[in-house]
Amino acid sequence: MAPNFQNRIRCLRGWMEHAGVDAILVGHAPNILYLCGFSGSSGALVVSRDWAVLITDGRYDLQARAEVKTARIRIHKADPLDAIGEVLQGCRLRTIGFEAHHLTVAGRRALGRCVRNSVRWKETTGAVEGLRAVKDSFEIAELRASAKLASGVVEQVVPLLRPGIRELDVAAEIDFRMRNLGASGPSFETIVASGPRSALPHASPSRKRIRKNELVVLDLGAILRRYCSDLTRTVYVGKAPARVRKMYNAVQEAQAAAFASIRPGIPGADVNQAARHVLDLHGLGRFFVHSLGHGVGLEIHEEPRLQPGAKTRLQAGHVVTVEPGVYIPGFGGIRIEDDVLVTPRGAELLTRPGGDLLEL
Amino acid sequence: MAPNFQNRIRCLRGWMEHAGVDAILVGHAPNILYLCGFSGSSGALVVSRDWAVLITDGRYDLQARAEVKTARIRIHKADPLDAIGEVLQGCRLRTIGFEAHHLTVAGRRALGRCVRNSVRWKETTGAVEGLRAVKDSFEIAELRASAKLASGVVEQVVPLLRPGIRELDVAAEIDFRMRNLGASGPSFETIVASGPRSALPHASPSRKRIRKNELVVLDLGAILRRYCSDLTRTVYVGKAPARVRKMYNAVQEAQAAAFASIRPGIPGADVNQAARHVLDLHGLGRFFVHSLGHGVGLEIHEEPRLQPGAKTRLQAGHVVTVEPGVYIPGFGGIRIEDDVLVTPRGAELLTRPGGDLLEL
Repeated sequence: MAPNFQNRIRCLRGWMEHAGVDAILVGHAPNILYLCGFSGSSGALVVSRDWAVLITDGRYDLQARAEVKTARIRIHKADPLDAIGEVLQGCRLRTIGFEAHHLTVAGRRALGRCVRNSVRWKETTGAVEGLRAVKDSFEIAELRASAKLASGVVEQVVPLLRPGIRELDVAAEIDFRMRNLGASGPSFETIVASGPRSALPHASPSRKRIRKNELVVLDLGAILRRYCSDLTRTVYVGKAPARVRKMYNAVQEAQAAAFASIRPGIPGADVNQAARHVLDLHGLGRFFVHSLGHGVGLEIHEEPRLQPGAKTRLQAGHVVTVEPGVYIPGFGGIRIEDDVLVTPRGAELLTRPGGDLLEL
Repeated sequence: MAPNFQNRIRCLRGWMEHAGVDAILVGHAPNILYLCGFSGSSGALVVSRDWAVLITDGRYDLQARAEVKTARIRIHKADPLDAIGEVLQGCRLRTIGFEAHHLTVAGRRALGRCVRNSVRWKETTGAVEGLRAVKDSFEIAELRASAKLASGVVEQVVPLLRPGIRELDVAAEIDFRMRNLGASGPSFETIVASGPRSALPHASPSRKRIRKNELVVLDLGAILRRYCSDLTRTVYVGKAPARVRKMYNAVQEAQAAAFASIRPGIPGADVNQAARHVLDLHGLGRFFVHSLGHGVGLEIHEEPRLQPGAKTRLQAGHVVTVEPGVYIPGFGGIRIEDDVLVTPRGAELLTRPGGDLLEL
């Protein structure tokens, strides 16, 4: 199976017609990758109603020609804006959309200078992100493989969690095994947080050694053939005291409630609330300091969001993380995170279920 | 030694006075890290003439309090813009600068909504980047350590380059050894490109196996205590033919010419030209498809640039990569890259010199 770039561009053109733009300038790298397959870090894609041009620099000449079949390729010399100006100048385009959430104020100003005044620039929001949120069958297969790979890494690494090993070394093992299993790298900086540091939801792995009777949070994800996974497991090194077991069970219950709530049509905010409600009942709501989850795909954080105020309704084909957690300052934290595909019948787990609290 | 955040904020205030702004809103994460030590991925720092406030979310509450001593900390609930609005609303600020090269068009629009109209927003460019380009003694020590670490990784990994090993596996070894030596991770996606793939300056490591009689380009960098290094070595697996040796010597000579040209006062463009001139003499200029180098520090690419048109003059305390390369489509590529500190006496190498072409 291969990505159907022509279909993706066709969908974008449908959006363009609806939005009343003659062309759109796409600068956000994951959006460019999605639309035409170019994986370089620097480029711009202009899509009009009947053509598409990728503009990049000499470092990516060969790579672009190998990767991109559905857009013309133009290699610019010094300033990409000159090339964009030249591409747009020749055509009878009146209204050109740009990505308001990606183009900087300085970039917008430069654009205004590089194209004649008769062009009307129009801010657009989420044009490509909206398409990307709903995964096609190629993408679902890739996300399934990426989630499976991350699950395999956890199984390999959990046995290494013995008193004395440093967080940093566990993180290095995680990233190494990921690569050995075929990943191009981690989808974000791997988190290994032990003891009181587990109460920091985004702790960078440190030189701290794991000790007996500590919680350890492992949060990791792989990039496999460009698609991200995101998975968190919390284990206890030793025999867990009742307080820890209660906390773990509450988080597990919150995740189960979120899973049960997932179906096409439910707003992201309501899934978040389903998990929060359970933690509130356990008196732990105020220790759940982040939102429940986010879409995952070519980027580690994308649409849709499972958070307060998120009105976007879930659709079949959305892939989201579900990651409730509680963090008690000075004591420790517990987070359980899985990746889920929204199907017409509800949530389908892509990661392998973590199960009950693992005591090592 | 520790970073002197107070001095950095003092320097920024000097800039603010000069630029005529009463406060500056800093949103670019490496700039925030530089100014106050906060290493989270999401936050905003407002610096006025006499106070500084870091705004971040609940995930980073404990971390911010541990890391930041020179700014007040404010944890926002839902929307960071509401918090920014509240911080700015109470004060008698008339002109507030923002980072035009980082703030998006959508972000700028939202800012306009969150603060009363009497505030004048002013685009600023490179306020913090200009300070960051000139490294202080703490930073020079850290960059030296990061460059040394990357040099050590190369020495460990070169002996693994045997026919039959896959590019991906070499990359995994590089990243693993980096971590073992204390790095928190690679400063960019490690490049291992062999045979004809070495002609792609930014090739992602693939499943391709290294074969006898191939060029192999290794481009890697570490993040050590937040500071980046960037180093490229090219080796030949087998006895190199005359054409390869000539190419290698030309690139080496181009790098030496660039080193010799480096001194305080020279524009970045002239250092680039010193290297290009040598490759032109060897008839290889058209195969040098990128610019010569870039600053390196908290980010892998920062100021100053060694590229055509770069008018910024080098100063003592700048740290830059010097990375000439030639890339022959279908045949292969050679790049040599080192990190260099600009001193009053000229260039000082931070990486360990690669020397002549290594034949394995």
